[in-house]
Amino acid sequence: MKQLKSILILGAGLSSTTLIRFLIKNSEKYDWTITVADKDIDTAKRKTNNHKNSEVIKIDINDSKLLSEVVKKTDVVVSMLPAFMHPKIAKICLKYDKHLATASYLSDEIIQMSSEIKRKNLLFLNELGVDPGLDHISAMIIIDKITNSGGTILSFRSDTGGLIAPEFDDNPWNYKFTWNPRNVILAGYGTAKYQEEDQVKYIPYSQIFNRVAKTTIKELGNFEAYANRDSIKYIEKYNLKGIKSIIRGTLRKEGFCEAWNIFVQLGMTDDSYDIINNNNTSLREFTNKFLAYHKTESVEKKFKAFIKRYTSNNIYNKFEWLGLFSDKIIPLKHATPAGVLQWLLQDKWHLNSEDKDMIVMQHQFVYKQNRTTKKLISWISVKGEDSENTAMALTVGMPLAIAVKLLMTNKIKIRGVHIPTIPELYKPIMKELNNEGLFFREEITNIS
Amino acid sequence: MKQLKSILILGAGLSSTTLIRFLIKNSEKYDWTITVADKDIDTAKRKTNNHKNSEVIKIDINDSKLLSEVVKKTDVVVSMLPAFMHPKIAKICLKYDKHLATASYLSDEIIQMSSEIKRKNLLFLNELGVDPGLDHISAMIIIDKITNSGGTILSFRSDTGGLIAPEFDDNPWNYKFTWNPRNVILAGYGTAKYQEEDQVKYIPYSQIFNRVAKTTIKELGNFEAYANRDSIKYIEKYNLKGIKSIIRGTLRKEGFCEAWNIFVQLGMTDDSYDIINNNNTSLREFTNKFLAYHKTESVEKKFKAFIKRYTSNNIYNKFEWLGLFSDKIIPLKHATPAGVLQWLLQDKWHLNSEDKDMIVMQHQFVYKQNRTTKKLISWISVKGEDSENTAMALTVGMPLAIAVKLLMTNKIKIRGVHIPTIPELYKPIMKELNNEGLFFREEITNIS
Repeated sequence: MKQLKSILILGAGLSSTTLIRFLIKNSEKYDWTITVADKDIDTAKRKTNNHKNSEVIKIDINDSKLLSEVVKKTDVVVSMLPAFMHPKIAKICLKYDKHLATASYLSDEIIQMSSEIKRKNLLFLNELGVDPGLDHISAMIIIDKITNSGGTILSFRSDTGGLIAPEFDDNPWNYKFTWNPRNVILAGYGTAKYQEEDQVKYIPYSQIFNRVAKTTIKELGNFEAYANRDSIKYIEKYNLKGIKSIIRGTLRKEGFCEAWNIFVQLGMTDDSYDIINNNNTSLREFTNKFLAYHKTESVEKKFKAFIKRYTSNNIYNKFEWLGLFSDKIIPLKHATPAGVLQWLLQDKWHLNSEDKDMIVMQHQFVYKQNRTTKKLISWISVKGEDSENTAMALTVGMPLAIAVKLLMTNKIKIRGVHIPTIPELYKPIMKELNNEGLFFREEITNIS
Repeated sequence: MKQLKSILILGAGLSSTTLIRFLIKNSEKYDWTITVADKDIDTAKRKTNNHKNSEVIKIDINDSKLLSEVVKKTDVVVSMLPAFMHPKIAKICLKYDKHLATASYLSDEIIQMSSEIKRKNLLFLNELGVDPGLDHISAMIIIDKITNSGGTILSFRSDTGGLIAPEFDDNPWNYKFTWNPRNVILAGYGTAKYQEEDQVKYIPYSQIFNRVAKTTIKELGNFEAYANRDSIKYIEKYNLKGIKSIIRGTLRKEGFCEAWNIFVQLGMTDDSYDIINNNNTSLREFTNKFLAYHKTESVEKKFKAFIKRYTSNNIYNKFEWLGLFSDKIIPLKHATPAGVLQWLLQDKWHLNSEDKDMIVMQHQFVYKQNRTTKKLISWISVKGEDSENTAMALTVGMPLAIAVKLLMTNKIKIRGVHIPTIPELYKPIMKELNNEGLFFREEITNIS
């Protein structure tokens, strides 16, 4: 087996800080070369900090020729680019016989390459960030533990959120962007699928933020969780055949979802058509485009009436604070409604340099053991150091970085397409996560 | 110029009856050959009635080879197939130098073929049914009249509906299928765009059936109209630059939309995933998949509570009448939510053989003439003869059939890609429609 020596990291943005730092640190011991490629070379330089084992490359991801060239020169590719780019990157890795690791959901396109990837003795790792990623790894450890001690799991609920730390939570939305803003704007598109008491349930996009679960996390307070994509397929992946209930959710601070729901209902998260075709539309005019015409009523009054159809809570101030009724001109030449919203929120929900973010993850299991029904709660909260060394970068980056380290040092021997729900992955990764100081807390109570 | 002698009609379904009859009738005078191709050869035979100038062909539209062969042998193709097939059919027509006419909305794919179509001296006619079609033709005649007499049009609202005639309106939805059921189920997908008092407005799918206009039509009673796709692009096509308001809508009997909205909100019109993967799910279980789990509450009770979030009207009986809470097994092996709904509604909203349908169209113009503001209402209602010779088949088929006749007899000389908003089309077509007995009524009142 050829000794792996070089790693290519695609994307040096928000979530890559810890990944780059960890791999560069380990490069000294193992004598690796780390190449970081980004469209913004300054960001790449800042994050590698001119380390002797590192190099940076300016790359436009649409430049397939350059992309192929840099992939060709490496042994392992780690992509932190948006998920939709991964099938393309996977094809290039497959062509040049390179391993690949990403934090993105495993896609049908990559599944289709499986047998070819296995035949070439390559490893393509997916869902190795925080959610999906750390959630899989930590859940599997618990599932093993319960099952090995003769327990039968009845229900599993897993919630994760990338949030602002309470001390820096100073806006009426109780939210700031700690990762790709576009993903936050488009969150929930499609249909969520989950299972409750043996019943399969579907939630369309227009109901997602309206049908949230309330949940309390010890010492952290009240949260709500909206349903996350397809939870049902994880019954098989988690080896939970026969389980009655399973749902994966995304955590927000209490009250966020009913306000976000207003954007969804108005159509402001639509990404399918250009609403801006010039550069002199005001935010107020933008808002008015989604409200029915009225001869005399103001935009504010119409907006208030719209809110009332969905909630009796007074949430108007959240929208006023964003400036939705202001005469500020939208400085975009072409933009979809979602694009305008992203421009606005990137300004308002910006992580200040002194801000610290927070990752919260909580698993709730109900299981039967020796005729007793028990509830196990396992949770972790991680705070960032600052606006660059975020908890998001840490929790997304560590599982990925550790997996790459294990692959580079020949500790992971499996090949093919995988997510970390198999013991060959979650066991060694969790061990290293513990070594790095990431621990879950746990409480078990008898409930009947 | 080559004398056109043969016509190929693709699709002999619900909307093709009058089209086939009219062209066969005219074939005697002009010595045309009419070929009718359908996947169901019996329907094709019934509609051509073995006329000496006709022939029928059984065709699977996915059989590109056979399709090319039959297109090759004809001069003019008329397609009554679903809209999504038209780019493919247009390409074949272009390849073999054949004219094409359809009732479907002009698509971007066909616009892209424009210069090639013109270069080959072909005519591709689109939007030549009832809506779009008859609405364009009749509106343009009025727009010409107002403009030619010095008037300035301030607003234009055009509504059309394919409905059940009042005498046969015997179900709680006041609706039966008079054309392609799938199109009814998926109606409103996307974003509706219109203009009101110089303000551009957008309605997302989740609001379409919630933001309807109430309208009364003389002698016919109360209707409501939901907004129809992109009305704004017709400002240019109708030559109405400077108009303040324009909206095109689809008519339903009062009360239909708020009930249909419940299906939309539940996610039952979703066509993106299979909800049925076996053949033993009951309608009641299907319904329950869209409602949150509750330990003790029945599906009926949860459904009633869901309705209450959208309307205070008592509309529950509409859903009960459909059997949504029954134990009836859904006999489909694979189906999306929209597919299940279509199966159910095709049974419940079926046009009985003695039923008569009704097409209602109403244009409302407000315009200024000699310092007076006037309102012009133009409307037509057409009843079908029976469940085969429907008003839908008549009003969809006649504009198309007349256009084809005018093309075959060399009365239409323009070439390229067109919709009937140009005088070369709407003037001669309207004249023939009048000859065939289709007249609009009109009322003009001074409003200030």
